[in-house]
This record gives sequence, structure tokens and C-alpha cells, in this order.
Amino acid sequence: MKPVYLDNNATTRVDPEVVSAMLPFFSEQFGNPSSIHSFGASVGAAVKTARGQLQALLGTAHDHEIIYTSGGTEADNTAILSALESLPDRNEIVTSKVEHPAVLSLCQHLEKTGRAKVHYIGVDSLGRIDIEAYRAALSDKVALVTLMWANNETGTIFPIEGLADLAKEHGALFHTDAVQAVGKVPISLKDSSIDMLSLSGHKLHAPKGIGALYVKRGARFKPLLRGGHQERGRRAGTENTPAIIGLGKAAELALAHMSEEQTRVKALRDRLEGGLLQRIPNCFVNGDLHDRLPNTCNIAFEYVEGEGILLHLTRAGIAASSGSACTSGSLEPSHVLRAMNIPFTAAHGSIRFSLSRDNVDEDVDRVLETMPGILEKLRALSPFWTGDDKGGKEFKPVYA
Amino acid sequence: MKPVYLDNNATTRVDPEVVSAMLPFFSEQFGNPSSIHSFGASVGAAVKTARGQLQALLGTAHDHEIIYTSGGTEADNTAILSALESLPDRNEIVTSKVEHPAVLSLCQHLEKTGRAKVHYIGVDSLGRIDIEAYRAALSDKVALVTLMWANNETGTIFPIEGLADLAKEHGALFHTDAVQAVGKVPISLKDSSIDMLSLSGHKLHAPKGIGALYVKRGARFKPLLRGGHQERGRRAGTENTPAIIGLGKAAELALAHMSEEQTRVKALRDRLEGGLLQRIPNCFVNGDLHDRLPNTCNIAFEYVEGEGILLHLTRAGIAASSGSACTSGSLEPSHVLRAMNIPFTAAHGSIRFSLSRDNVDEDVDRVLETMPGILEKLRALSPFWTGDDKGGKEFKPVYA
Repeated sequence: MKPVYLDNNATTRVDPEVVSAMLPFFSEQFGNPSSIHSFGASVGAAVKTARGQLQALLGTAHDHEIIYTSGGTEADNTAILSALESLPDRNEIVTSKVEHPAVLSLCQHLEKTGRAKVHYIGVDSLGRIDIEAYRAALSDKVALVTLMWANNETGTIFPIEGLADLAKEHGALFHTDAVQAVGKVPISLKDSSIDMLSLSGHKLHAPKGIGALYVKRGARFKPLLRGGHQERGRRAGTENTPAIIGLGKAAELALAHMSEEQTRVKALRDRLEGGLLQRIPNCFVNGDLHDRLPNTCNIAFEYVEGEGILLHLTRAGIAASSGSACTSGSLEPSHVLRAMNIPFTAAHGSIRFSLSRDNVDEDVDRVLETMPGILEKLRALSPFWTGDDKGGKEFKPVYA
Repeated sequence: MKPVYLDNNATTRVDPEVVSAMLPFFSEQFGNPSSIHSFGASVGAAVKTARGQLQALLGTAHDHEIIYTSGGTEADNTAILSALESLPDRNEIVTSKVEHPAVLSLCQHLEKTGRAKVHYIGVDSLGRIDIEAYRAALSDKVALVTLMWANNETGTIFPIEGLADLAKEHGALFHTDAVQAVGKVPISLKDSSIDMLSLSGHKLHAPKGIGALYVKRGARFKPLLRGGHQERGRRAGTENTPAIIGLGKAAELALAHMSEEQTRVKALRDRLEGGLLQRIPNCFVNGDLHDRLPNTCNIAFEYVEGEGILLHLTRAGIAASSGSACTSGSLEPSHVLRAMNIPFTAAHGSIRFSLSRDNVDEDVDRVLETMPGILEKLRALSPFWTGDDKGGKEFKPVYA
């Protein structure tokens, strides 16, 4: 049976058109674009086109606002360290409790090593940011605000442009990890207060190993990687030309498919979500139903373990996720669901289904057919499930 | 006419076998190897195989001594910053004047920002390191010695294992940028004193955007990129699986072709070099003839500009380089040739021809047919050339 892939927030299939666009640049036009000979020059022109395609997806106004990186993590790390180095008179960072580890881990490290004071703004039970706490944390000591555009686990969208405006009032640089938003929701940076934005190719049907950091013209910036003069001295290292060209093609396709994402993909997600809520007792949606990525559905199934659900789904040929792949291997409930105060009994049984334009009706049918049986089986084995769909037994964590 | 590519120290053609090995991992087995579902698991196994292939090329003894990076620059930067963070009681770095910009730029930045004192060891006119100066710079204040295995411009090989042994006597960490050596000369790390080694995929017929840092088991290490738990917490960011698998295949091929590199490729290089020296007056080889990469030939053609030679070569369909691509766009003589005290009249006219197993006899024939005419033409226009092959006019630099 054809496998069903519903883990597109972890990584996406590279679009075959993207692969075709990349292929000539491995073994034919393989020159180093920094070289002056003809092997290099033709590649330089293709990189320029790709940069334009990506700028179009982001709605940027000027050339050279894109710095290519090896992915979202490098872009996030670069933005944070650049801000601290660029504004040496300020040593505070404002972020949220639900950021991606590429932001949180570095912030925690900077705090631990005494290089920054970090404010971690909380969220409510729907994952919405605590605006009052955010306002209170802002001051002229803040070098950087870094807040994600959309949450990778729940799809909840922060009101990022308003948050950026507030940061600017205090002279702080504003960065957003938009890894999950780019390609899924329309973005126009040219009139925004956003100074820096991170994106990752493999979340939008481009290959792994490529990402970008948008840096608004005029925003202060210091490079993370030092060496050659590539990317106008802002990111050293030979340009990853096939991947840059692939990302350009993927950006063009994402723009072309944007309305499909908002309509067909969203409708698939809604049918999946509605169907599961209807067929399975004691489950609910994690996240903000009103301001959410069109492709993401995170459902808490009470009184079972998410890992158990995933194993049964895998056997049925369905790929989903119990949190972000970056923290897999751990049985701790996700930091995002903990920040949302999702009860332990539910956080542990939360599953993320993330769709893309590759998904079709049959994929949703398969999940709707498969999930009720899995839940029945697992709940029958659960010491905390009473069989009464009004609720389970009192839950005591069994994990150390 | 078929173009002739002799710029393999800048970048290489991705071997078609490498492309074939990578292809299934873009649009079929595209899962995130950190995911527990089947899309991820099969990829994890392929990454494991690739890691073994690379370890075999490096002659490493233990699993998990490889950390994948986005390339040589990231590997070099990571090694240097890791050493300073790992040994906080030491703040000196020993390096050489002829290192790649990925080492030199960062060292200069660390010096400028007061984070390290750096010793830049000189070389002689053949590019050989000044061992006495090196010994004198070593002390228990040195956190890191970073010296390249082989020079990218001249191919000169440093006696890297002996240099590493000396560093160990002082308790310093030893890193080598082996970007140009890996795949061209046999390497066996398992009994060496080398703690860290950088390599870059695209210099050995793997794609751009992938590299690795070898870190000896037990050597102290701190990550540069922080986020998810990939690479055992030593390098965050979704694994670039197609490129990792491509690098594995490229490593396997490099090992299989190692003796060809030492024989057929070297013979081609020697015929090219001998032929040019014989046909063209007033030129000489830059570098150490006795300890040099088998593929590299750097020749100084006196009284002309290297850029002029390159332009004529480009028109003739031949790609070579006047220095490293990373510093192209500048008319300054290369820092490597300056460190070697190559006279200004010759440094400016130095051309690097770098071969690979892709080259054939006809490529060398083409250069030997083409170069004498180019030199005659350029020298006829040069105000410093007398037409007397015993030497030119007194040379005055015309560059600002």
C-alpha cells in the first residue's frame, strides 16, 4: 500500500521540478560561482535568478537582502549572535517559551555563559503569546527580539508584524524564525519592521542543507562564518549552488501554489481534523484554531502515549510526528505543549499531522480509517483509561 | 571544442556515481533521519553507511568521530572556536601565514576583538613551514594549533603529523585544514596526534554544501551551531542526507582512485608542468617540488598579469585559477605567494592548474598548445618585458 506522509513540518519531499532544476549544477555547470572562468560565470547568473525567486516569495524590496545558509538552524544562530555582536551596549534577548530548539538552545547557552540575559515570554493554552509580558520585557537593554512566525508543533501563528513594531519602539533588532511559515502563508517583508527572517529549504520542497537569512537593507549585521568573500562577506564558504538554485525553484513553486495551500490543503487538514474529533472520544486540538498554519493539525489523544500511536501508524504506512523531530528520542512531553499547560495525560498523547500540496484525499481517508482502531487498542492497554468517554482514571506519570 | 577544466582545487565535478547515490534521497527516501517513522529510519541506515565510507578514507578508528558540516569553512570555524571555548585557560592560537581564509579571517577577527593572541608562522620560498619559529611559538598558553595539510594554491604539503606531535607536547589541541589533502594523499588518523581535521565534499567530487570535521574520540569539543540533537548534540540542524550519502560515495571512490591520483594524475601534472617550463621562458614553479599534492601545479610567468592569462585561457575554453577562488575579484597578489616572498613581478603572473581524475592527456595537450601564444601576446604588450629570455626590464608595480 502506498505510504502516507503527514510529517511535512519535519521535512518535505523535494519537488521533482526542483531536482530537475538542480541536476545540471552537479556534474555539468559545476563551477565555483566566485571563479572568473566560464565554468563559474554561468553559475553566477543562475544563482542571481534563484535569489530573485526567493526574494519574490518573501516580498523583499532590495537585492542582496538574502544570505544563504546551510539551513534554518544556522540562520537562527547567525541572527542571534549577530545581534549581540552588533549592539554591544545591549545584552538582553526577548524570545518565547515555544521557540524551536535552534533558538532556545542557543539562548540557554548564552544565558549559562553569562553572555546575555534572556526573557522567555509565555503563551496561553492556545499557544498565543502573552502580549503584556512581551511589552513588559522590552526596554532599551534589549539587543534582539526573536519570535517564531508560526509554531512547528501546533501551527499557531504569532502576530509577528505587530510584535516587530513594538520591538522597534525600543530600538531592538527583530528576528523571526519563519521556517514553518514561508511557503505556507503569504509574506511581504518590504514594509515590515522585521530586520531578520530565517527560512529552511527542506520545509518547502527544496533540499536539505540550504536555508537563508533575510537581513533588511541597513540592519546591522555581523557574520557567523568567516573566511572567503562569498555573500558579500556576510557568510563565508563556497556557495552551495545546486541547492541555492533548487531553493529558488522551490520558492517559485511555493508562490504558485500559495492559494492551493490556503484552500485545498487547508480543506484536507480540516477534514482530517474534524474526522478524528468525531470518530475518537477524548481528544482535542492543540493550538489556535483561528490563527494557524493551513497544513498543521496537532491533536491530543488522552490517556495514551504518542509514541505508541506513531508505532501503530508506522506499521500502517502512515508517517506523522509526536513533536518536532529535533527532540525525538526523548519521552519528555514537548516543551511547546508544556508551555501551553496542556495536561500531562494529553500532552503525552499528542500527535502532529502536517500536510503539504503532495497530499491527496486518500491520505486523509487512510488516517480516518486507521486511527480509531489504534486508539481503541492502546486505550484498552492503558491503566489510565476507564472506557468511559467522559474521562479516564486519575493519571500518574509513569516516566522517570 | 570540449572545455578543459583545470581548476579542481577550487571545486570538482560531482562524480556521476555520486549523483546517482544521492538521487533517491531527494524525492523518495526524503525522510528526516531523526524521525522514528519508516521514512526516517531507512535514511538513518544510509547515513550510517556513508559515515563508515568517510571514516575509511580518513583511517579513523572509532565510530562517531565525524561531524558533518556545511563545508570546509564551517568545519574550520567550528574547530577554532571550539578549542578556545574548550580550553578557557589558554588564549593563544598558532597558525601559519599561508592558511586558507576560513582559518586566517577568523583568526584575525579573534585577534581584533581581543579574544585570542595569534602566532602566524612564516614559510620559506618553497612554502615550507619555519619549524624553528613554530617550536618557539608553542607553549602552555596555546589552546589550538591550526595548520593546513596541503596548500590550496601551491599544493605544498606540511609535515602535519610531526607538527601535531610537537603541539601535543604542550597540551594544545591540534587541528588541520585538510580540505585539499583528503582524497589526494593517503590519510590515516587512527595513530596520529591530530585532534581535529576539516574536509570539504566539493573538493573530492562530492557536492557543495557538505563537509566534515573529524574530532578524535576524547578530544574536547564545543558545538558552533546549537539547536536539535543531531550529530550527538555536536552540530544542530537537520542532517543534509543526500549530500552526506553523496560524500560517502565520493569517499569510497576517492579511496578506490587513490593510486591513480598518485600515478596517472601526477604524471599528467608533471607533463603539463615540464612542458610549460620547456616552452615558455621566464617562468618557474611555486611550491615545494618534493612534497606536493600530485594534482597541483602553480607556475609564475614573469612580467605579465595572471588575470590576463586567465582571460585568454577562458576564451580558449580552459579553466584555471590565479589564486584561490575565495579571493577572486581582488588584484592583490595572493597572501600565499607573498608569504613565500615570490617577487612581485612573478607573483602577479602566477597561475594554478589543478587536475583531477577527470582529466585526460588531451587536456594537457591543449594547455601546452595554447599557453606559449598567450604569453607571447601578453608579454608583447607588457611594458616590463624586454623580449630577452634572461629577464625583463626593471619592474615597477602598476597596481595601486
